Amino acid sequence: MDSAASHAPMRSRLRRAFHAGLILPHGTEAHLAGALHQALEHPGSMVRAELAFRIASSLGMAEDRADNLAIAIEYFHSASLLFDDLPSMDDAQSRRGVPCAHHVYGEGATILAALALVNRAYSLIWKSAAGLSAEVQAAALTYLERNLGVAGLLNGQSQDLHYASSRMREPQSIAMGKTVSLIRLALVLPAIAARASPQEIHRLDRLAVFWGLSYQTIDDLKDVLYSGDTHGKTAARDAFLDRPNLALVIGVPESFERIHRLMTLADRVTARLIARRPPLAFLRQVRVQFNEEIATLSEASLTRAS
Amino acid sequence: MDSAASHAPMRSRLRRAFHAGLILPHGTEAHLAGALHQALEHPGSMVRAELAFRIASSLGMAEDRADNLAIAIEYFHSASLLFDDLPSMDDAQSRRGVPCAHHVYGEGATILAALALVNRAYSLIWKSAAGLSAEVQAAALTYLERNLGVAGLLNGQSQDLHYASSRMREPQSIAMGKTVSLIRLALVLPAIAARASPQEIHRLDRLAVFWGLSYQTIDDLKDVLYSGDTHGKTAARDAFLDRPNLALVIGVPESFERIHRLMTLADRVTARLIARRPPLAFLRQVRVQFNEEIATLSEASLTRAS
Repeated sequence: MDSAASHAPMRSRLRRAFHAGLILPHGTEAHLAGALHQALEHPGSMVRAELAFRIASSLGMAEDRADNLAIAIEYFHSASLLFDDLPSMDDAQSRRGVPCAHHVYGEGATILAALALVNRAYSLIWKSAAGLSAEVQAAALTYLERNLGVAGLLNGQSQDLHYASSRMREPQSIAMGKTVSLIRLALVLPAIAARASPQEIHRLDRLAVFWGLSYQTIDDLKDVLYSGDTHGKTAARDAFLDRPNLALVIGVPESFERIHRLMTLADRVTARLIARRPPLAFLRQVRVQFNEEIATLSEASLTRAS
Repeated sequence: MDSAASHAPMRSRLRRAFHAGLILPHGTEAHLAGALHQALEHPGSMVRAELAFRIASSLGMAEDRADNLAIAIEYFHSASLLFDDLPSMDDAQSRRGVPCAHHVYGEGATILAALALVNRAYSLIWKSAAGLSAEVQAAALTYLERNLGVAGLLNGQSQDLHYASSRMREPQSIAMGKTVSLIRLALVLPAIAARASPQEIHRLDRLAVFWGLSYQTIDDLKDVLYSGDTHGKTAARDAFLDRPNLALVIGVPESFERIHRLMTLADRVTARLIARRPPLAFLRQVRVQFNEEIATLSEASLTRAS
C-alpha cells in the first residue's frame, strides 16, 4: 500500500540526511556554526526533498544518489529562506517556530551560513550526477542554472523585493521565479538525471508550474487569512511590506478559484504521468495534502467572513 | 619570450570573457541587473583568473575549458567582495573605484547579484569539468568544496568578522581561510582538472599558501600604510573595525620580514615546479609583480617613518 505510514522510514531517513549532510569541521567559527546548526535542526516540511526523492526512486535512481539530490534541493530552499528573512529582504522575525538566525547569530554569520548550504548543495548535486554521461550532466546543469539563476529564483526574489517600485508585474509571474523554480528542481531534476523521456520531463515541468503556483497562492492566502504566528513564519506581512500577494490583488474568492483551476490542470498531467509510469502514483498523495491545506484555508476564510 | 606584452591578448580575452560570461536575460529585475552590470564592468586585477588560466594552459588544458575555470574562480572572488562589503560585514563605501553596489542598488539586490555570480561560477566549473573521468571530477569537487565551504573561505570570513569577540585567533590563520582559499583554487584546481601528478599538485598547493599569505600581509600593510582611497577600496579600516591585521598585531617591519620569508619559501617551490615543467616559468613573472608591490609598500613605509 502507498499509505503515508509506509513512507515514514523514508521521511525519517531524509530528515537524518538533511541534518547530517553538512558536517561542521572542528574550528568552525561559533556564529557561523550556530546559524548552521539552527538551519540543520529545523528542516521544515521537507516537501521538496520528499518529492525529489520519490520522483528519483520511481524512475529507478539508486538510493544514495536520490538522497543527495533531494537534500541538495532542500539545502537550496533553506538557504533561500535564510536570505529572504534578512532585514534587507523580508525582515522576518521568526521562521519554523524559532527566532530568525540573523536575530540570534547576526546578519553576517547568517549570510555565510546560507552560502555554506548553497556550497554544500552544489556538491551534493555534483555527487548525485557523478558518472552520468556528459550529455545528461549538461542537461541537468542547464536546468539547474536556469531555475536558480537570474532567469529563475534570484530574479523572482528581486522582483518580489522591488515589487512596490514596479507595480506592472503580476504576482503570478513573480511566483514563477520565486516559488516555482525550486518545485521545478524537485520534480524535474531527478527525471533528467534518471534519463526520463522528453515527454515525461515536459509533463513533470508542467506539473511543477501548476503545483508551484498553487503553493504560492495558498501561501498568499495564509498571509491574508491568518494573523499572528500560526504557520511558523511571521504572517500578515505582505500588505505591510507591499509585497506581491495574489489574494490581495485579485481577492480571496478569486484566489480559491485560481487554485481550483490550477489543480484541475495538475490532475490531468498527473493522470497522464501515472498512466505511463505507475510508480508515480504517489503524486496523488501529494494532491491529497494539497486538498487538506485548501480545506483548512477555506474553513479559515469562512470563519473570517462570518 | 615570456614578456608581459605577449600576454596582452590573453588578458583582454579573459576580461571579455568575464564581462560576457553572465548574460542577463530580458526581464531581469532592474536593481539586480544594475548590481550585476556594475560587478561585470569592474573586474579588478583578475589576478586569480590569469593565474588559473596560465596554470591550466601550461598543463595542456584546452582554451575554452581553461577560460571557464578561470572566469569561475574570478566570479567566486567578485561575489565574495560583494558580500564582504555589505553593512553587516566590512560596511565598505567604495570598491574598484566606484561606490559599493549596496549603496547604489540596495543590499537585497547586491546579495542576489552575488548569488548570481556564485551560481554562474558553479556552472562554469561544471562545464570546465564536463567529460572528465568521474575520479578527476570527484577530486576537483572535493578540493573546491573544502576551499569554498565551512572549512575554507566561509569560515575565514566568519572569523574575520567576529575577530573582536575571539581574540585568540592569529590573523595568519584567518588569512588561510579568507585569502589563501581562492588563490588555492586558482593554482590547484586547474592542475587537478588537467591530471597533474600528486607531487605537482602538492607543490602548487604550497605555493598558493605562501603567495596567499604574502598577498594578505601586503593587503594588511596597505591598510596600515595608506589612507584615503589610493588602492581602490576604503583604506585604514582594519584598526577602526577591529579586524585581524598582521601589520597591526606584529608591526610593520616584522610584516615585511614575514613576507620576505614567505617569498623565499615560494621561490624554492617555484624553482622545483619549473624544473619539472618548463611552461610554468610564467610563475616567475608573478614573483616580479610581487616584488614591485613590496617595493612600493616599502617606499611608503619609509616615507611614513621620515
